[in-house]
Amino acid sequence: MHSSTPRNAAFRTLEFTGTALRLLDQTRLPGEEVYVECRTYEEVADAIRDMVVRGAPAIGVAAAFGVLLAAQEVSSQDGQELLAHLAMAAKTLQETRPTAVNLRWGVRRMLGVAQAAHERGAQAPEMQAVLGAEAEAIYQEDIAINQAIGNHGAALLRHGDTVLTHCNAGALATAGYGTALGVIRSAVSAGKQITVFADETRPFLQGARLTAWELHKDNIPVTLITDNMAGYFMQLGRISAVVVGADRIAANGDVANKIGTYSVALLAQAHHIPFYVAAPRSTIDLETASGVDIPIEERSGREVSHLHDYQLAPDGIEIANPAFDVTPASLVAAIITECGVVRPPYGEHLPRLFSETPTT
Amino acid sequence: MHSSTPRNAAFRTLEFTGTALRLLDQTRLPGEEVYVECRTYEEVADAIRDMVVRGAPAIGVAAAFGVLLAAQEVSSQDGQELLAHLAMAAKTLQETRPTAVNLRWGVRRMLGVAQAAHERGAQAPEMQAVLGAEAEAIYQEDIAINQAIGNHGAALLRHGDTVLTHCNAGALATAGYGTALGVIRSAVSAGKQITVFADETRPFLQGARLTAWELHKDNIPVTLITDNMAGYFMQLGRISAVVVGADRIAANGDVANKIGTYSVALLAQAHHIPFYVAAPRSTIDLETASGVDIPIEERSGREVSHLHDYQLAPDGIEIANPAFDVTPASLVAAIITECGVVRPPYGEHLPRLFSETPTT
Repeated sequence: MHSSTPRNAAFRTLEFTGTALRLLDQTRLPGEEVYVECRTYEEVADAIRDMVVRGAPAIGVAAAFGVLLAAQEVSSQDGQELLAHLAMAAKTLQETRPTAVNLRWGVRRMLGVAQAAHERGAQAPEMQAVLGAEAEAIYQEDIAINQAIGNHGAALLRHGDTVLTHCNAGALATAGYGTALGVIRSAVSAGKQITVFADETRPFLQGARLTAWELHKDNIPVTLITDNMAGYFMQLGRISAVVVGADRIAANGDVANKIGTYSVALLAQAHHIPFYVAAPRSTIDLETASGVDIPIEERSGREVSHLHDYQLAPDGIEIANPAFDVTPASLVAAIITECGVVRPPYGEHLPRLFSETPTT
Repeated sequence: MHSSTPRNAAFRTLEFTGTALRLLDQTRLPGEEVYVECRTYEEVADAIRDMVVRGAPAIGVAAAFGVLLAAQEVSSQDGQELLAHLAMAAKTLQETRPTAVNLRWGVRRMLGVAQAAHERGAQAPEMQAVLGAEAEAIYQEDIAINQAIGNHGAALLRHGDTVLTHCNAGALATAGYGTALGVIRSAVSAGKQITVFADETRPFLQGARLTAWELHKDNIPVTLITDNMAGYFMQLGRISAVVVGADRIAANGDVANKIGTYSVALLAQAHHIPFYVAAPRSTIDLETASGVDIPIEERSGREVSHLHDYQLAPDGIEIANPAFDVTPASLVAAIITECGVVRPPYGEHLPRLFSETPTT
């Protein structure tokens, strides 16, 4: 990966330059706004694994561009050879992070168009062109989808609400605009006064480093708290709604999202606060029956014991670092998608999203 | 305050040298084991405020030695003059941290013996001697009380239990042995196999830095988790009991303790896991009717936004940093004191502790 300085004051989470995927390095925010360029699919895989880019929708889009970069590496005319190379790249990209289903979705969609082009007789150069157009479409659609999610979700928030969010489901977690933060942005755009409480979200601190940063850039009032303060502010009656993103939603409505989401959902239920999940349809995995079937990524204990080079805990102890947890569907008041707001029973209502035309 | 190196491998949270209160600097653990000496009551007050020493019982003992240091500053023979100086020192010491009632208790007990000595005709030198003996008694009693808490509480833990604790209610939070960790130590001493899950306890990281450190020194198996992982491990059935300390217990059994304790208690209830509080009688404040009457200390937002000099969050945002929360009595399965295990209804059972002879 190759670093560069930003071109202007606004930021782009990810952007394709024609020969590279340019990523805003999220491991270095909020202190430094640095872009890195991935010129091979292996570099894209590394960036996803190391969380230079993170957030289920964003890694789905990044993986699509990773497949495109793999395609561009093939100089042969032979479509079959191209497909073989893509299969290898797809495997590498999909293995980077197991929980978010969007990664698999983005890769499969790219492989699907390559396969279809091959079947209708296209050779490698044409397949490469088709893949370029598809990756660009995935990117543009993601932004449009987020705006549609925002519009549907904004209706759930009232003027004066204080919304708690966990992790970062913002512009930084998507191609732009955000899912959970898109809902907040849309409510603010509609003239509603919204205040946000952001859980700092240990250990990677997506809330402190990313959510606080992007909301502050948008002049949306944000109060940073540590994760263990959420219950306290709910007890005081200071939180009126919770909106989070998702990494995978099972067919029964169980939601895998950043570690700590389950605790927030349980606390919200105890305080009669609605708990909403905002996510694109690509996050819904009808092939996964329920939350117990969702693989939970275990990351290095060093993310817990160290902050950069500073050691927070003694040597020699055990450290657990599950990156996600599963919130049972029973705690979820609604799932906000680009096709509208889905209410329970999810097992009945989620499949319908795939038989209807999106209202984006 | 004046730093010095440790004298041996074991540690003492606090110790009086005759002319100074020597404290293990808890802001520098686990990286460095450094002792500081407080030679004036103002230095003791600073050490309490800056959390060089922390934990309700420990700051109660430290404050008693602070009063003793104030007494030793008076060279006059005049008992009245000594009392006036102590009153000033008492005010400074009590104002350092508002939530823990042990601070007030330790200071009041010292003022009480000085007043009694004065009333029976003692002059300043005799009063100073009485205060020296009283501070030493408070110190020794605290260790004995913790061991009694441990013995009573150990009966609540079963062989094979995995106990979640929050913050540090260990030897580092007391004159020695610990309250919540004393219960665990006693259970282990009784031959029970106990594994501990330690919440890291943001923002000050008492769990990561202190609990993990002292349990590891005692060879008690400990797994460090971030605060937002507790619910996940409860959901998996990995936690069989919760034991925490307390900073103040109201007459109705409501418990003020480190921020995040309330969330842990709610999560424990949802998973049918017993939630125990271990604390000396000096933590019980019958003058405070219920939790809403307990003042909650708000500390600097810098403790959340920075780790030493490293900045975790962008400039310009709001940050909340309440240091404690209140767990309603309804979530507390039992309160473990040096006089035995108290069960609900607490409003009826807590006052009885003060009319009975302790079983230490």
